[in-house]
Amino acid sequence: MPDPSPLLPVIGYTAATLTTVSFVPQALKTLRSGDTRGISLRMYLLFCSGIVLWGVYGLLTADGPLIAANAITLVLSSLILERTWRARWRSR
Amino acid sequence: MPDPSPLLPVIGYTAATLTTVSFVPQALKTLRSGDTRGISLRMYLLFCSGIVLWGVYGLLTADGPLIAANAITLVLSSLILERTWRARWRSR
Repeated sequence: MPDPSPLLPVIGYTAATLTTVSFVPQALKTLRSGDTRGISLRMYLLFCSGIVLWGVYGLLTADGPLIAANAITLVLSSLILERTWRARWRSR
Repeated sequence: MPDPSPLLPVIGYTAATLTTVSFVPQALKTLRSGDTRGISLRMYLLFCSGIVLWGVYGLLTADGPLIAANAITLVLSSLILERTWRARWRSR
């Protein structure tokens, strides 16, 4: 097996980009359609909390890419959380 | 500010646990309700691809917690992807 080390940063950055960017189509869909019935409020509560902690971890370790990826993901997932929460609140 | 280093692993593991576990309520909701209309197929295509790459990164760096967290997240997010894909396919 060839030494994978030169490829490692490429794999890591591609992985981080994909998981971060993946929330763009979901946020757009949720904002446009307003259909949050199939979306789990608990998922976005837990997920946003986790992303905040990942951001804190990035800040404490002064890890630029980790801070940037989590800041973007937090904005996108917070939009989905806010829409879902508001829809549940209205339909109580 | 106190030295944050003893807290760092706690923050990192809590963050990883939250973002991993967050997919449990979404997977359960999707499997039970079958309502995938508000779910973005593109999100789960991009997200699952990213998680596979994170797993590869974990394997290449022999990072046990990274492998474990991404294996669990992949199972959960693949279930959501499969249901959403199947629903879109049926409604073409």
